[in-house]
Amino acid sequence: MSEPRQAAAHLVAPRGFRAGAAMAGVKTGVADRLDVGIIVSDRACTAAGVFTTNQVIAAPCVLTRTHVERGTLRAIVANSGIANACTGEQGDRAAIDMAQAAARAMRCSPYEIGVASTGVIGWQLPVERIAKAIAVITPTEAGFEDFARAIMTTDTRPKMATAEAQVGGTTIRALGVAKGAGMIHPNMATLLSFVITDAAVEIDELRTITRRAAEHSFNAISIDGDTSTNDTLLVLANGAAGVPARDTSTAAEALITRVCGLLARQIVADGEGVTKVFEVRVSGAASDDDARRAARTITTSNLVKTAIHGADPNWGRIIAAAGRSGAKVDDRKASVRIGNLDVFRDGVPVRFDPERLRALFSQKEIPIEVALGLGDGTATAWGTDLSAEYVRINAEYTT
Amino acid sequence: MSEPRQAAAHLVAPRGFRAGAAMAGVKTGVADRLDVGIIVSDRACTAAGVFTTNQVIAAPCVLTRTHVERGTLRAIVANSGIANACTGEQGDRAAIDMAQAAARAMRCSPYEIGVASTGVIGWQLPVERIAKAIAVITPTEAGFEDFARAIMTTDTRPKMATAEAQVGGTTIRALGVAKGAGMIHPNMATLLSFVITDAAVEIDELRTITRRAAEHSFNAISIDGDTSTNDTLLVLANGAAGVPARDTSTAAEALITRVCGLLARQIVADGEGVTKVFEVRVSGAASDDDARRAARTITTSNLVKTAIHGADPNWGRIIAAAGRSGAKVDDRKASVRIGNLDVFRDGVPVRFDPERLRALFSQKEIPIEVALGLGDGTATAWGTDLSAEYVRINAEYTT
Repeated sequence: MSEPRQAAAHLVAPRGFRAGAAMAGVKTGVADRLDVGIIVSDRACTAAGVFTTNQVIAAPCVLTRTHVERGTLRAIVANSGIANACTGEQGDRAAIDMAQAAARAMRCSPYEIGVASTGVIGWQLPVERIAKAIAVITPTEAGFEDFARAIMTTDTRPKMATAEAQVGGTTIRALGVAKGAGMIHPNMATLLSFVITDAAVEIDELRTITRRAAEHSFNAISIDGDTSTNDTLLVLANGAAGVPARDTSTAAEALITRVCGLLARQIVADGEGVTKVFEVRVSGAASDDDARRAARTITTSNLVKTAIHGADPNWGRIIAAAGRSGAKVDDRKASVRIGNLDVFRDGVPVRFDPERLRALFSQKEIPIEVALGLGDGTATAWGTDLSAEYVRINAEYTT
Repeated sequence: MSEPRQAAAHLVAPRGFRAGAAMAGVKTGVADRLDVGIIVSDRACTAAGVFTTNQVIAAPCVLTRTHVERGTLRAIVANSGIANACTGEQGDRAAIDMAQAAARAMRCSPYEIGVASTGVIGWQLPVERIAKAIAVITPTEAGFEDFARAIMTTDTRPKMATAEAQVGGTTIRALGVAKGAGMIHPNMATLLSFVITDAAVEIDELRTITRRAAEHSFNAISIDGDTSTNDTLLVLANGAAGVPARDTSTAAEALITRVCGLLARQIVADGEGVTKVFEVRVSGAASDDDARRAARTITTSNLVKTAIHGADPNWGRIIAAAGRSGAKVDDRKASVRIGNLDVFRDGVPVRFDPERLRALFSQKEIPIEVALGLGDGTATAWGTDLSAEYVRINAEYTT
């Protein structure tokens, strides 16, 4: 196999998959934007999923998890506007109604439908409007962008990524669609991500691949356990490329991981009110777990996020965040470097021109390295600045 | 003893204590505001402390902890502007230099001095300027407000509280001075708090009282382990009221607890950019620990904080925050009430006029009750809204 590469601007969908969307007026009753979408395969897919670790789990997540446990899906139906979370038994029935409406339209069993919702918590879904919208959707090979638009909430742009690889003489493809997470951290707004591939992948293998891909992509932009009520990653493999599973599994993992990584970065860059992205690489931690804790606590610190937003050369907040992360930290052994500028070395502040740090913090992408000097643990996490615009967006979300 | 009551507008200091402050130009080199202060007792005090649980501990905290372990102090010296954290061995020497300068001025041993600093992390203290300022301070009984001003950073007003009680025919008094914490949550800017009393309290008892008072005040406004590099609470009891310890310990605990509670509320109300305060009472949790986890996660959720800021009736974020808190939560058994308005009852959303919730969220103080329906655990926590002003303040902190 060759290295997976991102497909060109025109997105070539994996064989056998189609998508489409419609306007149901889910949130407002006014059908003025795409808010219900379907992705469908012309044949059964092996399917694996990763769901929210929040103890308050939205009805569509509960339903879809049981469907995915069967191991095969044919289609995904998703809506934005209302999350169908904290909605009691009426919400359970609404999720089933969505599956049944999609099954009727796609002529398959409702157990072969994955259901996902995103939006306001605690509101009931307008199930009839959604069912009517589902009935008019005609999925096409060019419909993935419409689907991506239909699942947007506060996202400013649709999120899609593709990758392809050659196996023998055949091209296998993967395509992913996602909706972004509000602030990502620390209490992530809903993250929905759907990845499809025409590679053939056995179910056990697909489950392993999906878990690993999430760990290196979406989980690196969200703290474990710090998830919304609706977070869902579904991966569907339909084998339509015609290459046997034994020949494609390595390539398929590379493609799926690549697509998840690309989507995760798009999500970070499109976080609510985000003007800058920063990457935190922690090394020298007592363990990889410790490195992850430190990296993720730094990326979720409101004090770090606001300092970066204002290009305030206040690097001490970075080491203070590491110190409260639960990771083993000894500030007398720690070093911090922003871009190519050492600001703290082996426990001692380095004299530097604050204007240099201000210039580094003014970049769109800011690399931060924290060396703890304690062991071999490493981890990387991505964060975003915190802007007044974030506050504005989230102070007016339901209105 | 009578119930402790807050003293009238004129603060009557406990007997035998004096305070004062001076301008050292700690942060900018320009001596244009009070930034170094001293509190001193005319006799030895029993002393207890609670310090940051951050693994990155500022030099003054490390030093003061060892001094407090001896059990007696005579004076406290504190500065604002620079935190003396992440400053290596030079920082250790600076903290000792501050203790020595205060000991010379107050004619006691440096081991009887508690040292505290707050401000920017990673900058070195201008020790000579501070020592010169200490030398010109003349503490008086009316000097506590100057001291309170000297430890302010982004606080908009000084924070003081007093309480008194009658024991036999004698009035015993407590007085507290504090500086606020930036956002309080989730990565609290430094909290400094000093409480003095003229009650006599044995050292073991004072340690217990101090720990308990912190748990019900400052710890209810900050997540355990989520502390800054410099957080310090010191409690000094000098016995100058002349009542034996065996007669005053109950009254002393009530006074100290009362003063800590009053300071904690002042700190919340003066959080950076805060326009509203909300109180979260969790009941029906599987345990008190679970209740505390849920209450504190709700008060730290940026999504809850921004919804309250914008008076957005988005109550679902409250239950979603509880769900990711680590506490046992079953949304089918949970209820949420804002003020006198039920919004979610036994797992089912209640229909209500959103304008009523918008009106409740528009108040200056917002009571939120979450009943989990699982057990007898209860807890209360206080939070603040998140405003664009918070972002502005923290984006420009070092400048």
